[in-house]
Amino acid sequence: MRMVDIIAKKRNGDPLTEQEITFFIEEYMKEKIPDYQVSALMMAIYYQGMTQEETANLTKNMVASGDVIDLSPIEGHKVDKHSTGGVGDKTTFIVGPLVAAAGIPVAKMSGRGLGHTGGTVDKLESIPGFKVELTNQQFIDNVNKYKLSVVGQTGNLAPADKKLYALRDVTATVDSIPLIASSIMSKKIASGADSIVLDVKTGSGAFMKSFEDSKQLAEEMVTIGKQLERQTIAIISDMNQPLGYEIGNANEVKEAVEVLQGKRVEDLRELAIELATHMTILGGVYQNYNEATQSLEKLIDNGDALNCFMDFIKAQGGDITVIEDLSKLPGSSYKVEVKADQKGYIHEMEADEIGVAAMHLGAGRATKDDDINHGVGITLRKKIGDPVESGDTLAILNSDQENVENIINIVKDAYTIKSEKTNKQKMIYEVIK
Amino acid sequence: MRMVDIIAKKRNGDPLTEQEITFFIEEYMKEKIPDYQVSALMMAIYYQGMTQEETANLTKNMVASGDVIDLSPIEGHKVDKHSTGGVGDKTTFIVGPLVAAAGIPVAKMSGRGLGHTGGTVDKLESIPGFKVELTNQQFIDNVNKYKLSVVGQTGNLAPADKKLYALRDVTATVDSIPLIASSIMSKKIASGADSIVLDVKTGSGAFMKSFEDSKQLAEEMVTIGKQLERQTIAIISDMNQPLGYEIGNANEVKEAVEVLQGKRVEDLRELAIELATHMTILGGVYQNYNEATQSLEKLIDNGDALNCFMDFIKAQGGDITVIEDLSKLPGSSYKVEVKADQKGYIHEMEADEIGVAAMHLGAGRATKDDDINHGVGITLRKKIGDPVESGDTLAILNSDQENVENIINIVKDAYTIKSEKTNKQKMIYEVIK
Repeated sequence: MRMVDIIAKKRNGDPLTEQEITFFIEEYMKEKIPDYQVSALMMAIYYQGMTQEETANLTKNMVASGDVIDLSPIEGHKVDKHSTGGVGDKTTFIVGPLVAAAGIPVAKMSGRGLGHTGGTVDKLESIPGFKVELTNQQFIDNVNKYKLSVVGQTGNLAPADKKLYALRDVTATVDSIPLIASSIMSKKIASGADSIVLDVKTGSGAFMKSFEDSKQLAEEMVTIGKQLERQTIAIISDMNQPLGYEIGNANEVKEAVEVLQGKRVEDLRELAIELATHMTILGGVYQNYNEATQSLEKLIDNGDALNCFMDFIKAQGGDITVIEDLSKLPGSSYKVEVKADQKGYIHEMEADEIGVAAMHLGAGRATKDDDINHGVGITLRKKIGDPVESGDTLAILNSDQENVENIINIVKDAYTIKSEKTNKQKMIYEVIK
Repeated sequence: MRMVDIIAKKRNGDPLTEQEITFFIEEYMKEKIPDYQVSALMMAIYYQGMTQEETANLTKNMVASGDVIDLSPIEGHKVDKHSTGGVGDKTTFIVGPLVAAAGIPVAKMSGRGLGHTGGTVDKLESIPGFKVELTNQQFIDNVNKYKLSVVGQTGNLAPADKKLYALRDVTATVDSIPLIASSIMSKKIASGADSIVLDVKTGSGAFMKSFEDSKQLAEEMVTIGKQLERQTIAIISDMNQPLGYEIGNANEVKEAVEVLQGKRVEDLRELAIELATHMTILGGVYQNYNEATQSLEKLIDNGDALNCFMDFIKAQGGDITVIEDLSKLPGSSYKVEVKADQKGYIHEMEADEIGVAAMHLGAGRATKDDDINHGVGITLRKKIGDPVESGDTLAILNSDQENVENIINIVKDAYTIKSEKTNKQKMIYEVIK
């Protein structure tokens, strides 16, 4: 088998066999196939796409290239949740304790990574004392005892995906839906869950801006999951504006806790309950959608989910007095208001620009050696559909820099105000099973 | 400027600017841009093509990457001829002395290369004593004196093309017409001629099998020539069967000399005169097609072209008694007849398979370290349109191996015999100016 023939075959639009995909991944990992052949193949895939079978085979081989986490010492049906990423997305901190309170074990491995804000692990580290470095045994014991634990990524998961992604990133071959789908799913499957619920974001703050692309990605991932014998459901959810009102690290934890305390942050609570609904049904805790939703609402309202969160934080060394008094979370030196200069209704938001503004404040990492500032971020005062008067505050920058003129402009420009009334955004677009 | 943005731009179908193409070639040659980015770009070009302007800019930059031969010490208008390659193509040995006899200086640099038979240089080396290693001064003196000289490739011509071609060869990105056109033209332009006549082969023995592809390649090359201020004409000529009756090295020289001696090998003579016609008109020797053709016919018939060939061979150390008695050229130990096993007319020939058979006999090189056997090859007895009886000889293998059963089969299978009468092949399909 020769790599050049595999490239030519895909270039001509013919599907690759399982043997060809296995050959390509295995030899690439052994450095027997050079990057320049792989990048040509990636570009051919960009144009020709891949069949469901090819995508599943690629995923399977990327999983097989590294460690597969064994979660069998954890009792029960393990359901993982994955978000394709958006601005202000703190659902994990609500969904985790919520499904745990319902009896689903949540053994979450999370990264730090680059982005507008920190990753799940960075955000949790806003809580003084909290640590993600657990031994494997501590991790499993914590899940068995508290139903919820979060650790930093361990093991060498899907290294072929890592190598391929790094190459795609510098060869303009990232934007291929089958390649994105197999990349995400290879890591999820290597993480060892029995079932997977995917939160596929769509809109201005999402990786996929259009609904059609988001739906295609969702469908591809669900298909891969099924072909690799993982029950998989994808929720296509709105990302035309940040989720909730807080963007940052400590302030995202704060908002999530407030929801667990019963605060009605509608979009955030709705999405969290939707995700938890599918997770608990997949996990066999509830029989149907209505039963699940109603039960989960109760688990928030009666404080069980919050208690679960507290136990989890405490078990990993976090100072729970900070949860009891959220004003003790890290804050910022300055609060700078971004004001509307016209009257009307918020018509649109460029959610990704709000994310960029948060990054400029120091909430995220542009390169992997950057430090996260846990206390800075953005608090929105207005979202799509809200009426606004000229001079009203649109958002507050929680900043440690005094001069943030350009960040004010980014945030202001991210809002489009029009005179006609605009409807509120729908949160859930479609569920793909 | 970043290479990843250039790849993304081309991937999206937007044309690259001159600055972007210059950046890519210059930085690639400095090894500042890695192969894996270039192969992704090549694959994007495979799908998206290039505009005439992009193709011309790529060619210009590939020329500028190396030496450009200065032919100004040679008097007169220098016209070069280039063939895209076919089986049994020995026109250079007729066209060279013919246009030289008409007064056009022919300063030809030729390679050895891989292929079914040797290159021009290898074929000439069938003549005992002939040598292609001349100093630059000897080369120029010979052209000024005899109007014709052939040397092995010297200088570092279009190294960017060489580097790109090597990469394309292993990444399934060879088959792109604008890339092929710019590759050929970069070498021709670096070779220093004032005008270029291209012999673009089409058919079963050509790189381009279909007329449409051949025409597109011809048009692209003519356009590049014009944009780079070289008068360029392309002749699209038939390669659905080998040219003439001889395939090999010594036997191709023999057949060419026979044509110079007046032998009517119709297709070969017709193509040679057609090419010479356009070269001499471009070179300003003749005013129009009819004048040129008739004059060139005379230069063959009166022996001037043959004398020119003799002078050229003698000047480069060749033993001209071999030209006077062609039986003194290298031969083979065995002559093996390939016989027809049915009656009818030769309907089709897989010319490239005849080439493969010649290579198996030892006439060509599969890898660059292989030796050429000058004496072996194939002599055809039947070509398309010829009537044939069962048992008639189709071809003779001039072999140094006794057991050539599989080569017999290749040649026999290359012939398609049908009962209905078949027309002779047309030689010249179209002239692109």
